[in-house]
Amino acid sequence: MQITGEMLIGGASVRGADGTMFAFDPAHGTALEPPFGAGSADDVDRACGLAHVAFDAFRAAPFETRARFLETIAENILALGDALIERAHQESALTVARLEGERGRTVGQLRLFASHIRDGRWLAATIDPAQPERKPLPRADLRLQKIPVGPVAVFGASNFPLAFSVAGGDTASAFAAGCPVVVKAHPAHLGTSELVGRAIQQAVRACGLPEGTFSLVIGAGNAIGEVLVAHPAIKAVGFTGSRGGGLALMDIAAKRREPIPVYAEMSSINPFFVLPGALAKRGAEIARGFVDSLTLGVGQFCTNPGLVVVLDGPDTPAFVDAAAQALGQKGAQTMLTAGIAAAYANGIAERAAGADVRALARGADTDAKSAGCPALFATTQQAFMSDPRLEDEIFGPTSLIVTCKNVDDMIALAEHVEGQLTATLHVEADDVALARRLLPTLERKAGRILANGYPTGVEVSHAMVHGGPFPATSDPRTTSVGAMAIERFLRPVCYQDLPAELLPLALQDENPLDLWRVRDGRLGHG
Amino acid sequence: MQITGEMLIGGASVRGADGTMFAFDPAHGTALEPPFGAGSADDVDRACGLAHVAFDAFRAAPFETRARFLETIAENILALGDALIERAHQESALTVARLEGERGRTVGQLRLFASHIRDGRWLAATIDPAQPERKPLPRADLRLQKIPVGPVAVFGASNFPLAFSVAGGDTASAFAAGCPVVVKAHPAHLGTSELVGRAIQQAVRACGLPEGTFSLVIGAGNAIGEVLVAHPAIKAVGFTGSRGGGLALMDIAAKRREPIPVYAEMSSINPFFVLPGALAKRGAEIARGFVDSLTLGVGQFCTNPGLVVVLDGPDTPAFVDAAAQALGQKGAQTMLTAGIAAAYANGIAERAAGADVRALARGADTDAKSAGCPALFATTQQAFMSDPRLEDEIFGPTSLIVTCKNVDDMIALAEHVEGQLTATLHVEADDVALARRLLPTLERKAGRILANGYPTGVEVSHAMVHGGPFPATSDPRTTSVGAMAIERFLRPVCYQDLPAELLPLALQDENPLDLWRVRDGRLGHG
Repeated sequence: MQITGEMLIGGASVRGADGTMFAFDPAHGTALEPPFGAGSADDVDRACGLAHVAFDAFRAAPFETRARFLETIAENILALGDALIERAHQESALTVARLEGERGRTVGQLRLFASHIRDGRWLAATIDPAQPERKPLPRADLRLQKIPVGPVAVFGASNFPLAFSVAGGDTASAFAAGCPVVVKAHPAHLGTSELVGRAIQQAVRACGLPEGTFSLVIGAGNAIGEVLVAHPAIKAVGFTGSRGGGLALMDIAAKRREPIPVYAEMSSINPFFVLPGALAKRGAEIARGFVDSLTLGVGQFCTNPGLVVVLDGPDTPAFVDAAAQALGQKGAQTMLTAGIAAAYANGIAERAAGADVRALARGADTDAKSAGCPALFATTQQAFMSDPRLEDEIFGPTSLIVTCKNVDDMIALAEHVEGQLTATLHVEADDVALARRLLPTLERKAGRILANGYPTGVEVSHAMVHGGPFPATSDPRTTSVGAMAIERFLRPVCYQDLPAELLPLALQDENPLDLWRVRDGRLGHG
Repeated sequence: MQITGEMLIGGASVRGADGTMFAFDPAHGTALEPPFGAGSADDVDRACGLAHVAFDAFRAAPFETRARFLETIAENILALGDALIERAHQESALTVARLEGERGRTVGQLRLFASHIRDGRWLAATIDPAQPERKPLPRADLRLQKIPVGPVAVFGASNFPLAFSVAGGDTASAFAAGCPVVVKAHPAHLGTSELVGRAIQQAVRACGLPEGTFSLVIGAGNAIGEVLVAHPAIKAVGFTGSRGGGLALMDIAAKRREPIPVYAEMSSINPFFVLPGALAKRGAEIARGFVDSLTLGVGQFCTNPGLVVVLDGPDTPAFVDAAAQALGQKGAQTMLTAGIAAAYANGIAERAAGADVRALARGADTDAKSAGCPALFATTQQAFMSDPRLEDEIFGPTSLIVTCKNVDDMIALAEHVEGQLTATLHVEADDVALARRLLPTLERKAGRILANGYPTGVEVSHAMVHGGPFPATSDPRTTSVGAMAIERFLRPVCYQDLPAELLPLALQDENPLDLWRVRDGRLGHG
């Protein structure tokens, strides 16, 4: 499939007339062909208008059609073959192996939601039968199902050009809910976006869905995204990116005439607690595992462990040394974009200059362009608690080891940090009492709590939570990965005394979809 | 039980020192004893601090304790006996019969949530067992449950001094989720608030829960509520009231360092469509039912039908006449407060002065103080579509009948209105085709769709939705009435590879709580 540099607005390919943009190869510092035409507010308006028109028809399509639609997207992405991987590799400098894995994850995610649609539990079908004889007043017949919220705007992330982008988790879960999607392509991977966008556009056509079910718009600055979030047809927003970007979208969404929810995944330093028993028994092994997790994919994961918390004790120096040594053996590598590499270099330079921060180790430098060089720092709990900058996320392969004088200081630190995507505990049998003290705090702070593992690597499954209190996300009641992500794009509607011929299929007496339903408060197939 | 005029801050009774307030008897235009001491920002800070401290202990209490707590509140409210009803009657001018019904609803609501806690489905317990042999990477053991979001601020509504106030649906569902609650008492029913607050305070003590589980603060202006919503310990807000009030709280919540969700139920005119077949067959009966629903409780229901939509046809004049005649027989009655009565009088005066509005009927006047006199108006679809003021909610017993030239105009009107709590259809067999055309629009606009009934009267049950798109509420993904209201105050947490001794009870292998759980995507008791 050819990359043309066009936007996809409904069924059409449209060359934007608001300037020319190029994708960029960060490893070679070169622009990539072809040129892309940037879109205008009018293009966004057309895409949103089509999405509005498509909404009722798309959500009315049989669930089987919706499931097949997601599966067709998955098949079409696979059919793009090596060309997709090569383009994504050029645009992101991520390795081919990593991108092949990410493609598998993207396809798996679409298929998980296809099976989730068929399962139908997301409808939350609930029936309270009429009680005409009830005193003092009869009860009406009440039936509830969830319906999609409306067209959704999706902003792809730079660090997952496949799994968190055009056909990523936000798009897949919005489609699964029955919402049309308008994606704003991430400027760091325009070609990848177009290829995947065309795979979706073809699936829309093949499944006989209305053309407005999907559009892909592009633009250089923030303007086009702002217009998209402000558009009256858009009813929710999915975003993965920086704290500043997420806050800007939240602000636009809150100021609309009709405010809408923004699901922004923004900022997390993923505290990693190594408790004394684990430090004694597995210190060196944990240090190596931590450094592998930290430097994976040049540290460009939302869940990479940017904060290590240990107690000052006899085994601590050896742990710190082992981590420093392991990190020193990691090399610098090209980051996703020149801008990200520059921000990372600034971030670690500022951290190194911190009064109470000690530079522990630095990876091997390289002459690779836009490279991020691993860097490890250390400080004390007191210094960390008194300098909020030490809690800022530096996106890339760097972490800060914080030493606590005692257990109370460790708990105070856990209580002090902002909301997180993850919190990790390394524990042995003699750490259980301390872990029990930490857990309630970690539950309040993080969306996922791991024991004896490493936070990078987010499983796509039913029990996953990729979310957490602000600023990890804008809405801790949700997850952006896993089956539960669909709930972000649903709302309940109650039907009271509707004649049988007007009732939605999911709520008809004979349960034609064979759904799990709650009847008079009891779950079953009634 | 004595009304003292104190606030309830944790286990203490505290006399506010920031001025004196009095409850007011709107029917007699007199202040009611005793004087209340208004609270300060420091009082709010103490209440929120206690709530924060209480949170982990309250949520860790056995679910049975939490359920008994709600039941104890219900028992304590009943034990207040006639004194509660009499005080509520004095403060609100609502009839004793209505208030007794409302007490039953309040108690029923607490008991529904008690049984919902025991059921445990709200935990959404989900287990993806480890797959150590999976290729290319093993899968970790992943387990999800929902936990409460944290302390909740509740703002009671003037129009339901029991069911939407201190121990109303917001408080009951927040407690059910495991959240401590700080209530700001509505100044229109301070005595009722204190009585119910003491019933809760006693239940906290009797159930051995931490004192910060509940506080009740009072204040004259908006300042104390603003401080409450801005307090870092507060993690969500429940509010029922005016659009202006709700928007102000949403703004404060969005501007916090950590933004939090506001569940505000604000404004709805509850469109009521009478389709031609129903108009022909039951026009006069529907007109009378509509007027009864409109004037019930002096029209002071969130769901009262403020907009009637009919097609211009042979049966329309008779329907309009019947409604006008029925309304003319209703008398003026005292409203909840002098302020509400004044705003209502202004609202209907402005509406009567509208260029394209025809005054159809007015109820019988009275010399009752702060009375709201029923008033019915008519206009055309064209006038309605071109004057946004005709869509404003006038809180009280008034409605506007809009006549449409044809079906397309009716559908355009449905598409034009803002979000609503309810939409009602009156249909007969020959209306089904038109109803089918209207339904997708009504689903997008309203949280509850009724056929052949009247929107006032909100059942407290599993399938109820009392919510809807903005401005009906600030968050259409939720309901403030019914079992699903608990979901507003929950968030998911995933536990990865946690040792058995650290796992929450709900997620332990042997399923000790005998919960419905999703295992590997399948629902059961495994």
